[in-house]
Amino acid sequence: MLTLIAALSLTIQAAPDDDPITAMRKKGLVELGAYSMLHDLTTTVGHRLTGSPGCEQAITWVQDKLRAMGATNIGQVPCMIPKWTRGNHESAVMSDGTALSVCALGLSVGTPPEGIEAELIEVKSLKEAEALGNRAKGKIVFYNRGFDQSKVGADYGGAVDQRSAGPGVASKVGAVAVLVRSMTINRDDAPHTGTTRYGDATPIPAAALGLVSADKLSGALKSGPVKVKLTLSCANHPEVPSGSPYGEIRGWQKPDEVIVMGGHLDSWDLGTGAHDDGGGVVAAMEALRLMKELGLRPKRTIRVIGWQNEETMGRGADSYLAYAQNAKEKHFAAIESDSGVFMPTAFGATKSKLKRLAKWQPLLEDFGIHKFREGGGAADNGPLEKVGAILFSLDASGQRYFDLHHSRNDTIASVHPREIEMCALAMGSLAWLLSERGDELK
Amino acid sequence: MLTLIAALSLTIQAAPDDDPITAMRKKGLVELGAYSMLHDLTTTVGHRLTGSPGCEQAITWVQDKLRAMGATNIGQVPCMIPKWTRGNHESAVMSDGTALSVCALGLSVGTPPEGIEAELIEVKSLKEAEALGNRAKGKIVFYNRGFDQSKVGADYGGAVDQRSAGPGVASKVGAVAVLVRSMTINRDDAPHTGTTRYGDATPIPAAALGLVSADKLSGALKSGPVKVKLTLSCANHPEVPSGSPYGEIRGWQKPDEVIVMGGHLDSWDLGTGAHDDGGGVVAAMEALRLMKELGLRPKRTIRVIGWQNEETMGRGADSYLAYAQNAKEKHFAAIESDSGVFMPTAFGATKSKLKRLAKWQPLLEDFGIHKFREGGGAADNGPLEKVGAILFSLDASGQRYFDLHHSRNDTIASVHPREIEMCALAMGSLAWLLSERGDELK
Repeated sequence: MLTLIAALSLTIQAAPDDDPITAMRKKGLVELGAYSMLHDLTTTVGHRLTGSPGCEQAITWVQDKLRAMGATNIGQVPCMIPKWTRGNHESAVMSDGTALSVCALGLSVGTPPEGIEAELIEVKSLKEAEALGNRAKGKIVFYNRGFDQSKVGADYGGAVDQRSAGPGVASKVGAVAVLVRSMTINRDDAPHTGTTRYGDATPIPAAALGLVSADKLSGALKSGPVKVKLTLSCANHPEVPSGSPYGEIRGWQKPDEVIVMGGHLDSWDLGTGAHDDGGGVVAAMEALRLMKELGLRPKRTIRVIGWQNEETMGRGADSYLAYAQNAKEKHFAAIESDSGVFMPTAFGATKSKLKRLAKWQPLLEDFGIHKFREGGGAADNGPLEKVGAILFSLDASGQRYFDLHHSRNDTIASVHPREIEMCALAMGSLAWLLSERGDELK
Repeated sequence: MLTLIAALSLTIQAAPDDDPITAMRKKGLVELGAYSMLHDLTTTVGHRLTGSPGCEQAITWVQDKLRAMGATNIGQVPCMIPKWTRGNHESAVMSDGTALSVCALGLSVGTPPEGIEAELIEVKSLKEAEALGNRAKGKIVFYNRGFDQSKVGADYGGAVDQRSAGPGVASKVGAVAVLVRSMTINRDDAPHTGTTRYGDATPIPAAALGLVSADKLSGALKSGPVKVKLTLSCANHPEVPSGSPYGEIRGWQKPDEVIVMGGHLDSWDLGTGAHDDGGGVVAAMEALRLMKELGLRPKRTIRVIGWQNEETMGRGADSYLAYAQNAKEKHFAAIESDSGVFMPTAFGATKSKLKRLAKWQPLLEDFGIHKFREGGGAADNGPLEKVGAILFSLDASGQRYFDLHHSRNDTIASVHPREIEMCALAMGSLAWLLSERGDELK
C-alpha cells in the first residue's frame, strides 16, 4: 500500500539561518534518505545471516555508501564469526499428516536427512522441562508459554528463555529435539527464529513454531499422545573471518573524542532484516549523510558503524570493544539503535547523565524523543561502558515490533519512510549535541 | 500480514488488588476488544458516508453494542444531515487518452453525464487562482501545491485550503471545474476526498487527483496546453434526519456531571473509515466495556458518543451542543479522538488545566501519553467549551495518518490491535481520573 518515494535526486540545502538540527530535519524529511538506503540494502543485498554471502556483501555496501557520502577513515574492525546455514529443508509433520509452520532456531544442529520422529511433551517453562526427568527421554519437548499480553512492553524477555536455553535444558533430560512457540503475538503462523545456546548440553535439533501451529499441537495433545516428525537441514560450519564496517566525520576540535553510532549489520535470513537491524545501521548512515551534505563540521569525531554478528555471538561488539581499549582515541559516547525503526519515543541513557540530558530533550522532541530514561547499554554499545563511553539506546514505538521480529515479515514493506527518517534525525541530532555541547554532561 | 486475533470470548477479570487503571490495562491488552469491534463495524456496516445506508446502520450498531455491554440511557441526539452520493462513475481522462486516478470531493456537484472537457491551468494557491482573472474562464483549474514534507507534523493544514475553498475561488473567476492534488504524501496514486465548500460561488464539479496523476498532469503541462475530460456522477440531495448515538454509565455520586467521550461515526466512502473515525468511536466504547465488565462504578457519569456528520457539516457537534445547553446535567469534560488510532502520544487539554493535569501524566504513561499539551478542542467536542466542559483531544502517532486519510486505504488493515487498544486505555483511564479525581482540577 505504501509507496512514498524518496527524492534523493532532489538535494535540499539548509536555509542560511537554520541551526544544524533544523537543517537536518528540513533536508531529511524531504529526501527520506534512510528509507531509500534501507530499500537498497534489503533488496540488492537482501538478508545478512551471519556467515552468509549477504553478510559479507553488506560490509562492502556500507563502506561504499559511506565513501560516496564523503566519510573518511573507512574501514572495518575484523572478527571471526560462526557460520550456520539453514539448508533447503525444514518441516514438522504430525502423524496424521498435518504440516506445521516451522523454522530452525539459529545455531541449531540439523536432524538426520530422514528426520526425527518422536512423541511430544508440552511444557510451559524451563523448570517444567527439568522436572520431566526420565519422562523426556526420546521425546520432543514442546515449549509453549506465550507472551503475557497484558504487559505494556512486549513480553519478549518473559518468554525468550524457552528459545535461548530451552533446547539445552531439554537435551539434559534426554529429549531428542525441541519445538518452541514463536516469540510473538502475531497469529499469522509465521515462525520466528533466533539463536539458541546449548551450553554444555549435547546439541539437539530445535525449531520455532508459528502460533497457529503451536495452538494446533497443543489442542491435539489434549486428546492424547501426538507424534511429530521434525526434519531440519541446518548445520554449523567452521568460523569465517568478517568485520564491522565503519566510517566517520573527523572532529575539527577534538578529533580523538569519538561518538560512535549505529546498529548491527547482520540479520536473520527469513526476512531481510529491515527493522532488525538494517534500519539501525542505515539511520546512523543517514545522519552522517545529512551532516556531510549540509557541510556541518562537528567538534568531536562522529563515527558510524555496522556491528557484525549481534544475532548469534556478538563478535562485532566484542571486537570493537577490544579495538576501543587499544585505540589512542577516547570513546566519548556510543549510540545504538536496535529496537526497530518505528517512530522514536525516547533514548535510554547512562543514569548519571540523565539530569543534565533532560535539558536537551526539548531539542529532540520533534523526532519523538519525549525523555531520556535510565538505560542506554544495549547488545553492541553496552561493552563500551568499559572505556568510559556515555551510552544511549534509541527506543522506538514497540507495539508492532514483535509481529515481525526474526520472521519473514521483517522486510522493507513494514518500514515507514518518515518513521525511519525520524530515527535518523533523533540519532543525528543527539550525536551533534554530544559533539558540540558534550561538555555540558561532565 | 497482521492477523492478531482478539480473544473476546476469553474474559479477563481484574486481580482483587489492581487499581482500576491497571485492571483495565490487564483486561484490555489481552482481549483487544477495540480492534474486534472496529473489525466488526468496518466489515459488517462498512463505510458510513453521511446520509448513506451505512451511516444509519451504524447508529443502531453503536446502540446495540452499548446495550449489550450494559450501558444505560441509550439514545441519540437527532440532527438533520446533508445527503451526498458519489454515484457510480468518476473519471478524468487526458486528451491523449491517459486516465487519471480521481475521485469527487465531498459535496461537489456532478458534471453532465457526458462530462466536461476543458483546458487545464495549474496553480499553487488560492491567490494564484484569484489572480487568473479572465484567463480561468472556461478552464479547469488544477491546484497542485503539495504538503511541505519538512514539517514535523503532516502539513494538512498548510495545503487543505485548496480542497476546501479552492473550487469556490476558481468558480468566481469563471472556471468550469477543479482538480486538486490529494492531501497526502503517499505516492500510491490513491485519490483522497474531503469536503469542499463553495460559499457564495456557483458550484462547479471538483475532484481530487492521486499524486502520481497530479505529477503526470503537471509534467504534461510543461510541454504545452493539456485538455482533460472530467466526468463525475456525484449529486447533492435533500437533507435527511439522522443522529448521534450514545450510552453511558451513570455516576453514583454526581450523576449530573457528565464526562462525554467519543469520535465521529460518519466517514468517507472510499475506504471504511477505520482510523477516521470508527476507531475513535470504538476506542471510547471499549473503555466503557472494560469499566462495565470490571464492575467499575464511576462517581460521575461517563457517556460514550458517536458524533454524526463531522466530515461535511458538523451537525452532530452542533446538535449535541444544543442538547447540552438545554440539559439539566453539567458537562464536566469532553474527550475526542479524531487523529487516527495509532499509538497515543499526548492529550491536548484546556490550557488553564495543564498545570494540574501534569500530575496525572505518569498514570497514563503506559498508554503512550507523555504529556498534556495546550489544545483539547477538536471538531466535535470543541463546541462544548460553551457549556464549561474541560476539553481533551487524543493525539496519536501521526506519520502514517495522511497515507490513508479520506482514501481507499483507510480500512481495518491499517489498524494495529494493540495500538487502538492503547487509545481505548488512554481515553478510559483519563475518563476514570476525571470521574474520580476531577475535583483536583478545580
